[in-house]
Amino acid sequence: MRIRAVYPGSFDPVTNGHIDLIQRSAQVFGEVIVAILENTEKTPLFTLEERKEMLGEAVGRLKNVSVVSFRGLLVDFAQQIGASVIIRGIRAVSDYEYELQMALMNRRLSSTVETVFMIPAEAYSYLSSRLVKEISAFGGSVKGLVPRQVEKRLAAKYKNYPKSS
Amino acid sequence: MRIRAVYPGSFDPVTNGHIDLIQRSAQVFGEVIVAILENTEKTPLFTLEERKEMLGEAVGRLKNVSVVSFRGLLVDFAQQIGASVIIRGIRAVSDYEYELQMALMNRRLSSTVETVFMIPAEAYSYLSSRLVKEISAFGGSVKGLVPRQVEKRLAAKYKNYPKSS
Amino acid sequence: MRIRAVYPGSFDPVTNGHIDLIQRSAQVFGEVIVAILENTEKTPLFTLEERKEMLGEAVGRLKNVSVVSFRGLLVDFAQQIGASVIIRGIRAVSDYEYELQMALMNRRLSSTVETVFMIPAEAYSYLSSRLVKEISAFGGSVKGLVPRQVEKRLAAKYKNYPKSS
Amino acid sequence: MRIRAVYPGSFDPVTNGHIDLIQRSAQVFGEVIVAILENTEKTPLFTLEERKEMLGEAVGRLKNVSVVSFRGLLVDFAQQIGASVIIRGIRAVSDYEYELQMALMNRRLSSTVETVFMIPAEAYSYLSSRLVKEISAFGGSVKGLVPRQVEKRLAAKYKNYPKSS
Amino acid sequence: MRIRAVYPGSFDPVTNGHIDLIQRSAQVFGEVIVAILENTEKTPLFTLEERKEMLGEAVGRLKNVSVVSFRGLLVDFAQQIGASVIIRGIRAVSDYEYELQMALMNRRLSSTVETVFMIPAEAYSYLSSRLVKEISAFGGSVKGLVPRQVEKRLAAKYKNYPKSS
Amino acid sequence: MRIRAVYPGSFDPVTNGHIDLIQRSAQVFGEVIVAILENTEKTPLFTLEERKEMLGEAVGRLKNVSVVSFRGLLVDFAQQIGASVIIRGIRAVSDYEYELQMALMNRRLSSTVETVFMIPAEAYSYLSSRLVKEISAFGGSVKGLVPRQVEKRLAAKYKNYPKSS
Repeated sequence: MRIRAVYPGSFDPVTNGHIDLIQRSAQVFGEVIVAILENTEKTPLFTLEERKEMLGEAVGRLKNVSVVSFRGLLVDFAQQIGASVIIRGIRAVSDYEYELQMALMNRRLSSTVETVFMIPAEAYSYLSSRLVKEISAFGGSVKGLVPRQVEKRLAAKYKNYPKSS
Repeated sequence: MRIRAVYPGSFDPVTNGHIDLIQRSAQVFGEVIVAILENTEKTPLFTLEERKEMLGEAVGRLKNVSVVSFRGLLVDFAQQIGASVIIRGIRAVSDYEYELQMALMNRRLSSTVETVFMIPAEAYSYLSSRLVKEISAFGGSVKGLVPRQVEKRLAAKYKNYPKSS
Repeated sequence: MRIRAVYPGSFDPVTNGHIDLIQRSAQVFGEVIVAILENTEKTPLFTLEERKEMLGEAVGRLKNVSVVSFRGLLVDFAQQIGASVIIRGIRAVSDYEYELQMALMNRRLSSTVETVFMIPAEAYSYLSSRLVKEISAFGGSVKGLVPRQVEKRLAAKYKNYPKSS
Repeated sequence: MRIRAVYPGSFDPVTNGHIDLIQRSAQVFGEVIVAILENTEKTPLFTLEERKEMLGEAVGRLKNVSVVSFRGLLVDFAQQIGASVIIRGIRAVSDYEYELQMALMNRRLSSTVETVFMIPAEAYSYLSSRLVKEISAFGGSVKGLVPRQVEKRLAAKYKNYPKSS
Repeated sequence: MRIRAVYPGSFDPVTNGHIDLIQRSAQVFGEVIVAILENTEKTPLFTLEERKEMLGEAVGRLKNVSVVSFRGLLVDFAQQIGASVIIRGIRAVSDYEYELQMALMNRRLSSTVETVFMIPAEAYSYLSSRLVKEISAFGGSVKGLVPRQVEKRLAAKYKNYPKSS
Repeated sequence: MRIRAVYPGSFDPVTNGHIDLIQRSAQVFGEVIVAILENTEKTPLFTLEERKEMLGEAVGRLKNVSVVSFRGLLVDFAQQIGASVIIRGIRAVSDYEYELQMALMNRRLSSTVETVFMIPAEAYSYLSSRLVKEISAFGGSVKGLVPRQVEKRLAAKYKNYPKSS
């Protein structure tokens, strides 16, 4: 039995917290599919192509990890690719509540996919893509929070953004 | 003493979780007024008229339940209709915190209306109108989560929405 | 329809938070039965008789409230006395979680009794019998936290207790 | 890669919530070792031998599941048996916080064992061994909450316990 | 050692909860700088100038308190003005989680600024600028929730807003 | 104004999390009094004298920090020593709720002492004296979680304790 697990997210952009979780997942499951949600409602900072490139640079060297994108219901996608596990990282309690609701709903939508929760290193417990973008927008340093390549891309995106007075 | 209780919400659309709570309320209070909030800021999926129809189909058979709509402050409305109880359903902890703040504020605004909290069946603990709309939008089945009539109306609303690739 | 509600607890001793909740309940339900749990495992500070007396002094003047004691399962007791509602006060989030579990379990044990949650005045949000006993034990004043009679009884119980050096 | 996972607990006694989680785990991991903690401080209701028998009866038919007992640190035990995953079920938010702390501490004690969290069916979200014992002690029915064999054993344990008056 | 502390916020508008916290802070720290965030993304109800005036009216009489505005990263601003403490008020649990994440991130961005949390009087535990605006918009009274001057300004802002039918 | 702050606790034993918080406090307040609670109900692992010694070894070098013990109500002790601030470290959400209740009660008992909350480094977010004792009891290493001297004392206390089989 070689379990295929899917790790879904927006990854706008990938952070060191995501990477930590992907590495841990890759040691627990036979194959990990990192699945970028093509979110059509919110406007992401990075295009789908850019997000895919950044993830590829970050986790491409891991043998049993691959990066794809999907749209529609996560459980439908999981079934299409033969994944029986959904991986979700949890940090705060408020995260957990939302995740619990999604997991129960996904179980109802598909009984063949099970959600498991894993936790990132505590150094990343307060890290989110949203926070990384906020800090970059105001000219703060995100060194150590995202891979070197992502740091550069964020700087490029925000280079004309008004800084702290 | 015949207590009149008001159960406010957007009901966009009504779910089986709402219906479960209305049925439970109808056994605890003399009269239950289901009050649809005419929310003027967010654009609902269903018109006020549609939401009223769906609720009527769902709970019209209950003798001591009626469906109305209101605008303005909930406590003002409660006083106008002579209701001394506000019913709120709570599911998750984060729900509860917000509800607690609203209940304390409403008590301050009107000392004659008391908020009571009730809990839906655990099968509906993860259910919300928002989640139902998301699933429908992506072509998932909401059977068993909403009444049959609501299922049909959701399908009609989303029939031209882009599905999972 | 005159709803009989049961408000269970240890009341060791009754606090102003309990009294606040009993008063609110008495305005929402036809009849409120305050039910003292004869807890056989933990040793209470006050005897069952003392707890009953203190409650009687505190809420005896309310016409539709009576004070009794019970042992065994709460839902069995509720059914015996014809109560269809269990009232529980909630303050903190951690309270709520435990209460939610108990409410779901009680619903499973008896489908004819519904739990409703109410909240005390915010001035009592941090008040508990345990805290009142701790403060009294160390010679602190509990004025305003418990009725005058309970204040005296606490002082008598703890008069030989070692105070702050 | 065939992942061996350990599912630790007191199982005093095993409930249908535990069994649900063991079944789910057995579909996600190559091998699941149910590990009964020989808790030397609290006095359990059932002996270690009884708890092992009840678990055997409940999950013995699952091919990739076995039942053992252990003492000492969980991470030491996991390493001894070659397990790289610890499975924990989470229900409430307060559960989750404690579990999160334990998982981070266990990660520190051993970097080769990863904790994953899974959730039982929502019908068991309020179920615990402690609650099952309380209900049995007061003569309530635990049918549907524990396996038939455990129900009988609980009845035998509590047959002389004082019931509701 | 005279500690300079910064109390950041949107103050759109200042409430009695904010004022309570500023007064408490002024007794604990040598100097308190109330710092209005020039939030460029959300449209505030009151202009920066109006918010500054209302705060000045409310806390101008406190000797060791001053009111300024800032843009950019909070920790950068704190360092520029020589503040070594960030004060944050916390009310609910969900507040606390977000605040905890921000505090850890701010600590990472600057090791010379420490966040401390303080709690307002329990009478203000449910109070927020957002709630005050909602109540005013619907014609409710916010007396006792905000200073008299703010009450007037809110009434002026909302005088043509559609009221409850 | 030189603010004296009291940091109360059992410190049975002091951990690196406590030390981290004492160091942070010593930079925010003029003087920090570490106050060991002479808890007469629970039996501590270390005597009051041992706990005082370990704290002295750990924070004795900090100029504005001193170590004392107290009994009775914390607010009474704070007033006796002229402290106007109580420092509490918070880690998890469940911590926070209990702490919030204690802070509100202490404010009621004494209006001249204000509670402020600070957070330890995230590396210590899961650390507690209880957990350190549990790990030591089972022969696990607590290196990096407590000072070197405390590590030795724990080993001595538990040297005859039954280890993992």
